[in-house]
Amino acid sequence: MSVKHFKLEPGKKFRLATIDPNDTGAIRDREEVDAAVERLKEQLEALQNKLYAEKKQSVLFVIQGMDCSGKDGVVKHALGGLHPQGFRVNSFRAPTEEEAAHDFLWRAHQIAPAKGMIGAFIRSYYEDVLITRVHHWIDGAEVKSRFKHINRFEKLLESGGVKIVKIFLHISKDFQLAKLRNRLTDPTKHWKFDKSDLVERESWAQYEEAYESVFKHCSSETAPWYIVPANHRWYRDWAVLQIAVAALESMNLAFPESDPELAEILEKLQE
Amino acid sequence: MSVKHFKLEPGKKFRLATIDPNDTGAIRDREEVDAAVERLKEQLEALQNKLYAEKKQSVLFVIQGMDCSGKDGVVKHALGGLHPQGFRVNSFRAPTEEEAAHDFLWRAHQIAPAKGMIGAFIRSYYEDVLITRVHHWIDGAEVKSRFKHINRFEKLLESGGVKIVKIFLHISKDFQLAKLRNRLTDPTKHWKFDKSDLVERESWAQYEEAYESVFKHCSSETAPWYIVPANHRWYRDWAVLQIAVAALESMNLAFPESDPELAEILEKLQE
Repeated sequence: MSVKHFKLEPGKKFRLATIDPNDTGAIRDREEVDAAVERLKEQLEALQNKLYAEKKQSVLFVIQGMDCSGKDGVVKHALGGLHPQGFRVNSFRAPTEEEAAHDFLWRAHQIAPAKGMIGAFIRSYYEDVLITRVHHWIDGAEVKSRFKHINRFEKLLESGGVKIVKIFLHISKDFQLAKLRNRLTDPTKHWKFDKSDLVERESWAQYEEAYESVFKHCSSETAPWYIVPANHRWYRDWAVLQIAVAALESMNLAFPESDPELAEILEKLQE
Repeated sequence: MSVKHFKLEPGKKFRLATIDPNDTGAIRDREEVDAAVERLKEQLEALQNKLYAEKKQSVLFVIQGMDCSGKDGVVKHALGGLHPQGFRVNSFRAPTEEEAAHDFLWRAHQIAPAKGMIGAFIRSYYEDVLITRVHHWIDGAEVKSRFKHINRFEKLLESGGVKIVKIFLHISKDFQLAKLRNRLTDPTKHWKFDKSDLVERESWAQYEEAYESVFKHCSSETAPWYIVPANHRWYRDWAVLQIAVAALESMNLAFPESDPELAEILEKLQE
């Protein structure tokens, strides 16, 4: 299965309901992809090494999804093999007072990945056209305006060498319920439970609509959205690894040119 | 072998020459610790989970050592299993113009780990009493003054719940030579070669002295230095994992108290 399977065509109208969160393609179970996952991890680490050595480009994974969709988990299980020195994860929470005192892209810009680095945003500036929209904190004109700002912002990042990979983890409402129950019953997971998740859950349909609108207005050939069925965590990890490897492969990464003096230095060192 | 084996007694005079960088204790080869390493990684990840959930304390690994001592490698191979969301690595390079316009601890303070987080400094504010001292950029009085500032700074971090774990990776001069040659012969490692490493190498003895002085003046019961023989990478990783696990175990980490309302919420969810 190729990465195209998960990629949304930019600008095309798309309904989340057309994709089954339980989907695992032609694959029956975890065991079938175990070996492929290990291989993909190795490929990704090798590509990261080149990215880090080259220091001309960077990668930004934007990870979105409903509560309990496995955003934290995918960072650990699909991307957790990356060298920690070259990988930086940021979780977007409610903005601080200082962040709120700036435009909505200010805080994202500050933590954009530097050349050589891979960044992952768990939630992102897209929340500013999702939760804000669902709760009518901003009106339709502001939403439209923010879509434009986001598109221009992503172009700016790209101009600085950032490859943007946007991933939506697609779960079902039932699956979320099971996960919430699990957080409530397992004492080692109580801390993960947030009452506000129950409030957001009531707006499930509105969130789906808001996401569909994002997919329609904020996709481009260079920074498309990928929709990853995520009820099965192993399938989610395998899909995201494939998307990640394909993204880095498309960047034509290369080790930097060697200094011609190196041979001479080596000779002296051997004396 | 316990962690005490690697720990320096605060305030005691200590000579690096008394420790063999090739030392592997009573262990003959990698295979002998393979299973232990896997177990330690699992323990460390479980402890990190509690640290992250508790959000009251944090951990800072300060990783120092000569060029080629394996500072980057230990972050990948010993600490690479940590959840990337709760682990942040910072490499200290020559200060930027803005950093140099402040006191020498300013930049370290800005990136001190937040509650719940594990930070690793690859090199650190200790460079400000190492390279600066070896090259006589600062005089003896300034060195002494900086030792005091560092000790007070570490106390301040501790007061904010930071557990500081300082690790010196101990290699031999011959081992460094072999590594430098390797960087010069392997085209995929050319980018790691830095001519300035050869300059610093000439001051090997002065660096050892500068380190010994650091160990003497900047160790405390709560933030001691650990000296890890690092010519054998597998031994280095095993030792650092042991030190890391022991450090987190000493913090009495606990999941936060559950909200008594949770049972009620669960009941409603099940209706």
